[in-house]
Amino acid sequence: MSAVLGGEPLSRFQLQSVFVQEADQLKGVVRRNYICDGDRLENTAEHSWHLALMVMTLAEHANQPINIFKTIQMLLIHDLVEIDAGDTYCHDLAANQDKAEREEKAADRIFGLLPEDQSQTYYQLWQEFEARVTPESRFANAVDRFLPLTQNMAAGGIAWRHNRVSKAQVMVRCRPIEDGSVTLWHQAESIIDQAVDKGYLAT
Amino acid sequence: MSAVLGGEPLSRFQLQSVFVQEADQLKGVVRRNYICDGDRLENTAEHSWHLALMVMTLAEHANQPINIFKTIQMLLIHDLVEIDAGDTYCHDLAANQDKAEREEKAADRIFGLLPEDQSQTYYQLWQEFEARVTPESRFANAVDRFLPLTQNMAAGGIAWRHNRVSKAQVMVRCRPIEDGSVTLWHQAESIIDQAVDKGYLAT
Repeated sequence: MSAVLGGEPLSRFQLQSVFVQEADQLKGVVRRNYICDGDRLENTAEHSWHLALMVMTLAEHANQPINIFKTIQMLLIHDLVEIDAGDTYCHDLAANQDKAEREEKAADRIFGLLPEDQSQTYYQLWQEFEARVTPESRFANAVDRFLPLTQNMAAGGIAWRHNRVSKAQVMVRCRPIEDGSVTLWHQAESIIDQAVDKGYLAT
Repeated sequence: MSAVLGGEPLSRFQLQSVFVQEADQLKGVVRRNYICDGDRLENTAEHSWHLALMVMTLAEHANQPINIFKTIQMLLIHDLVEIDAGDTYCHDLAANQDKAEREEKAADRIFGLLPEDQSQTYYQLWQEFEARVTPESRFANAVDRFLPLTQNMAAGGIAWRHNRVSKAQVMVRCRPIEDGSVTLWHQAESIIDQAVDKGYLAT
């Protein structure tokens, strides 16, 4: 690590402390969906907490047995790249074109604040999440795509209506839920049908 | 469980889903400290995420070896009682008098939404956090008391100045950090000294 403080290299604890303080900025990254009461848009830090709590509570519904600890760690760090790259709305095709490049650069900088061993661990967890190959990553992605459905329904569909989102778009976004949890996918299908019935989603 | 939906008892998945959606309300519980940029007060959901990330990153600095998974789970659920009981400011002596009673009632209701086995597990984790006896609980309490110090410093001491908090009050609040991590405690002492030098804390 090249980080220095007053000419002295930072200690392991100091590097970790810089990372922890940097992470605070995730609270200022605003997503496109609302919290359930529709009062305000959600930020990515509180979203990450909610996902970790979901995994802790719903892990038994994963298609394959998962390492819950690893899945929670994955979700605690998976969106830290948004500190630099911002939240890229899933239904914004233009913004998604350079998303991977922006997030890769962000991962290098943000995980690079940590001591080398932790930097590698966090980077690998983030890559595993993005790849959607392991059972842990598939379930983590399933909850990440499922939760906004319930929030959008609870908030009267405002995020969908405001962004003129269609059923077809939500189906594309949510299809990978099935790879992580058939239980969540059946529930997702039911929510999407209700959203169409209520006029929250365009057909 | 007595929860019913349209006359039918709720399934295990439905009970868990009700709990997960109820948890969304923690995003609306506002704490007395600011996020690092001083832009706004912090909410308890994003605070819980930050603590879990801290444990994942700083666990090696616990005084005794800890089960990191258990400690993270403890922190993910430890403040859910605030959905009913609100955030009780640590330096508000009057509000702290009936805090235990209010939070006990909240724990019964909120963890009681879950299937019986999970309800018991979450309740026990919450009680373990409160008791500050096990190494996991001591470290969890240490990060919970340490993090606001760094946030208050980063935000120019506004929460302390606004609430006219003294060094003596912060020392009482922070002393248990030492039981969880001597490393964090030494850093806490240094931060408190700096806060006094800058006039953020009254002497």
